[in-house]
Amino acid sequence: MAHLVSTSCSISIPSRSRFCFKEQSLIGAKVSFASFGSQISSFSSKKLIYRGERSQRVCTIHATTLPLIEEAKTQPSSASLNTSPEGSKKKRVMIIGGDGYCGWATALHLSKKNYEVAIVDNLVRRNFDQQLGLDSLTPIASIHNRIRRWKSITGKTIELYIGDVCDFEFLSETFKSFEPTAVVHFGEQRSAPYSMIDRSRAVYTQHNNVIGTINVLFAIKEYSEECHLVKLGTMGEYGTPNIDIEEGYITINHNGRSDTLPYPKQASSFYHLSKVHDSNNIAFTCKAWGIRATDLNQGVVYGVRTDETDMHEELYNRFDYDGVFGTALNRFCVQAAVGHPLTVYGKGGQTRGYLDIRDTVQCVELAIANPAQHGEFRVFNQFTEQFSVNELAALVTKAGVKLGIDVQTISVPNPRVEAEEHYYNAKHTKLIELGLQPHLLSDSLLDSVLNVAVKFKDRVDTKQIMPSVSWKKIGVKPKTIAA
Amino acid sequence: MAHLVSTSCSISIPSRSRFCFKEQSLIGAKVSFASFGSQISSFSSKKLIYRGERSQRVCTIHATTLPLIEEAKTQPSSASLNTSPEGSKKKRVMIIGGDGYCGWATALHLSKKNYEVAIVDNLVRRNFDQQLGLDSLTPIASIHNRIRRWKSITGKTIELYIGDVCDFEFLSETFKSFEPTAVVHFGEQRSAPYSMIDRSRAVYTQHNNVIGTINVLFAIKEYSEECHLVKLGTMGEYGTPNIDIEEGYITINHNGRSDTLPYPKQASSFYHLSKVHDSNNIAFTCKAWGIRATDLNQGVVYGVRTDETDMHEELYNRFDYDGVFGTALNRFCVQAAVGHPLTVYGKGGQTRGYLDIRDTVQCVELAIANPAQHGEFRVFNQFTEQFSVNELAALVTKAGVKLGIDVQTISVPNPRVEAEEHYYNAKHTKLIELGLQPHLLSDSLLDSVLNVAVKFKDRVDTKQIMPSVSWKKIGVKPKTIAA
Repeated sequence: MAHLVSTSCSISIPSRSRFCFKEQSLIGAKVSFASFGSQISSFSSKKLIYRGERSQRVCTIHATTLPLIEEAKTQPSSASLNTSPEGSKKKRVMIIGGDGYCGWATALHLSKKNYEVAIVDNLVRRNFDQQLGLDSLTPIASIHNRIRRWKSITGKTIELYIGDVCDFEFLSETFKSFEPTAVVHFGEQRSAPYSMIDRSRAVYTQHNNVIGTINVLFAIKEYSEECHLVKLGTMGEYGTPNIDIEEGYITINHNGRSDTLPYPKQASSFYHLSKVHDSNNIAFTCKAWGIRATDLNQGVVYGVRTDETDMHEELYNRFDYDGVFGTALNRFCVQAAVGHPLTVYGKGGQTRGYLDIRDTVQCVELAIANPAQHGEFRVFNQFTEQFSVNELAALVTKAGVKLGIDVQTISVPNPRVEAEEHYYNAKHTKLIELGLQPHLLSDSLLDSVLNVAVKFKDRVDTKQIMPSVSWKKIGVKPKTIAA
Repeated sequence: MAHLVSTSCSISIPSRSRFCFKEQSLIGAKVSFASFGSQISSFSSKKLIYRGERSQRVCTIHATTLPLIEEAKTQPSSASLNTSPEGSKKKRVMIIGGDGYCGWATALHLSKKNYEVAIVDNLVRRNFDQQLGLDSLTPIASIHNRIRRWKSITGKTIELYIGDVCDFEFLSETFKSFEPTAVVHFGEQRSAPYSMIDRSRAVYTQHNNVIGTINVLFAIKEYSEECHLVKLGTMGEYGTPNIDIEEGYITINHNGRSDTLPYPKQASSFYHLSKVHDSNNIAFTCKAWGIRATDLNQGVVYGVRTDETDMHEELYNRFDYDGVFGTALNRFCVQAAVGHPLTVYGKGGQTRGYLDIRDTVQCVELAIANPAQHGEFRVFNQFTEQFSVNELAALVTKAGVKLGIDVQTISVPNPRVEAEEHYYNAKHTKLIELGLQPHLLSDSLLDSVLNVAVKFKDRVDTKQIMPSVSWKKIGVKPKTIAA
């Protein structure tokens, strides 16, 4: 394999490192690399504009938004000779949040499937880890090295735009430059506990997610009206109603009349609420502007391996097991691997939809390949199986036996406000109808999750495991995890 | 009447004059007045802190948040000898947005009814008029002169905190200073067309409304857990479903099971959506934190006169008839007064709930006097009668005849995206059950609206009347009304 490739590229570097709601400061800089190692042959400042903004005294430094690999558009790679997803013209997919857990797996998968892919990310997810003293179980390469490695292995280019979608000037430049035919929007603060740490993080989460999505909608309207928005929502938008959960809409018969209306939402954190807000905003723009959108109400994702991230250690995906970003099953597997009791919150009857990360990438691919119509706000419930927390704990315990691990389970006080015993039956047929072939947990648990946890168990920081954020104790004073 | 009263007061003055999402700049200044005229005897800078904020280079100037009339708490007015709303201890009501249309009428009404009242307002509504070249039909005094006049006539003090509830430092100081037992939250950008002018105003509207309300919720949790939140929502949250609209919740029977769930929302502007977001956020905090809240889903308010604003011309309320802030009926009456045809948008079958501003103040009073329980998220539909736009036009035409005015009606292209013929039947019994005694339009139209329009018809700027904002043409370029 040709691991050393000479290329020239431009990177836009963000300086977003605190929670403020002004226009983001961005630095544009041109960087040349002699190889995929860390030897940087030259670094020249390309564009650095300093504007004292009128009476508000906000100083903004504007970004260039050139793609990482400039020749991507002009020099077709060998891969583009393959049959593309839509015959002669390749679909161009912008993946906002493409450096994150679901985003990175999706970016590689779509690139492998011959979509032209651009990642748009401000890398704030990596910054959250630094601020809270957390780390991925798996060692992950920088986004720059990830993309270079992918190119070296597959010959395929992934373009990179570093910046914040809340900064509309940045976003509009990326749209005009990349001209996406589909936007996959993972670029939101995606942790419920993070949104419940303190007031400023609650505000940050809603501002970042809601305004970022509004900006994406305006960018599509203004620059790319044909573009299909594939937006990541969450099954958590529905809460736990005492009736079946439908996919986005429900037909209600009431006082002798009938209408099909948006399914009632009962979100239970500032994060989940932000996704409800997004759904409402998107639905409106579909109706008012003819935007074509698919809302993927995703369940809890587990696993870390996909065909593409398995190709090289620099392509590894992140694996979060901490109390803030880790989700139940991934965390349980890490706990099992290091001999920590599985921590069930409260009674453990909390039931949710789950899916393998390999199915996340499949679902997004299916949504893109079968786009919504103009004006259509389509909602898919994106999960494959339902489990209660107690059922997950039992499955991990059983899997542990096969590896010779004795797994214990304890109940810890539930830091959330949620029903711990409830009815739950959520429909999830639309993606199956489009062709989704699920990976079921019983087949994946050992290989895709538990063995990964065991492999990296020396990297586990047990201080990160216990819940540290309380839904009831959130206050106005800024908080991080104590050093 | 003693129109000249000597008093000493402190005012906090905001400098919010553009749409940016950083912490607000505020100037604290101590002002002494010798009389209620414009003679200012001294102006001394009291507190002026300039902080260059670290690497972000945002400069923040912090406010003092002393009430306008400092002696309010220590020197009880004669009015406080009257029977107070709850016997010995007066209820303390903070009215956010108390300088606006509904807010000002409410502030005076509650003060008259012996509540201790504080107005919290950043006066941005007045700034919107300046930016867009609009003006109230009625001449309105400054908030400072309004409050002084009220004191001079009634002896009652209304405290004043000038600042932005999106600035949590300001809001927390007002809470700690005033210690409200109820908060009435009118403090939002309240125009659907305004939110559809351009991207920056769409973003401003959702940021301002959603974050402001989150801040209020945190302030209540942190400083005033007993405090009852009375939040102004809108009937527009529901849209125009083909089934009866209930008050906040609907019982759904589905696949053999049943649950009472939040009524599905279908808002149709970034403004209306912001109110949906608020409702969802508030409902969550009621459940998670035990907040007590009443969401008043208000219909279209008409009229300008209340018993209190009628007491002096410096107490007059604002009356908006323009295409951005004016609502259908008020605008029609102004059109009739100046001989402009009534402008019906599209087919005119758009049906909504309406109420007299005298009922707005009654409803808020009823909500405060009968507070929600801890953890209760109570929703009242706040209107008294339903009309279609065509019905309103017919009523104004008929009323015009009595005044000898020949009223014409024309249809103009509908700038909004909305159904122009639809089923509409919205419940509104809960406030009636609490004692609301409606003023009906047939009794009020001439006196409370049309005659006011005629009285001030020389102030009408006909250029403001036609719709200037299109739901479909909104774009990313900043727009104001052309000079």
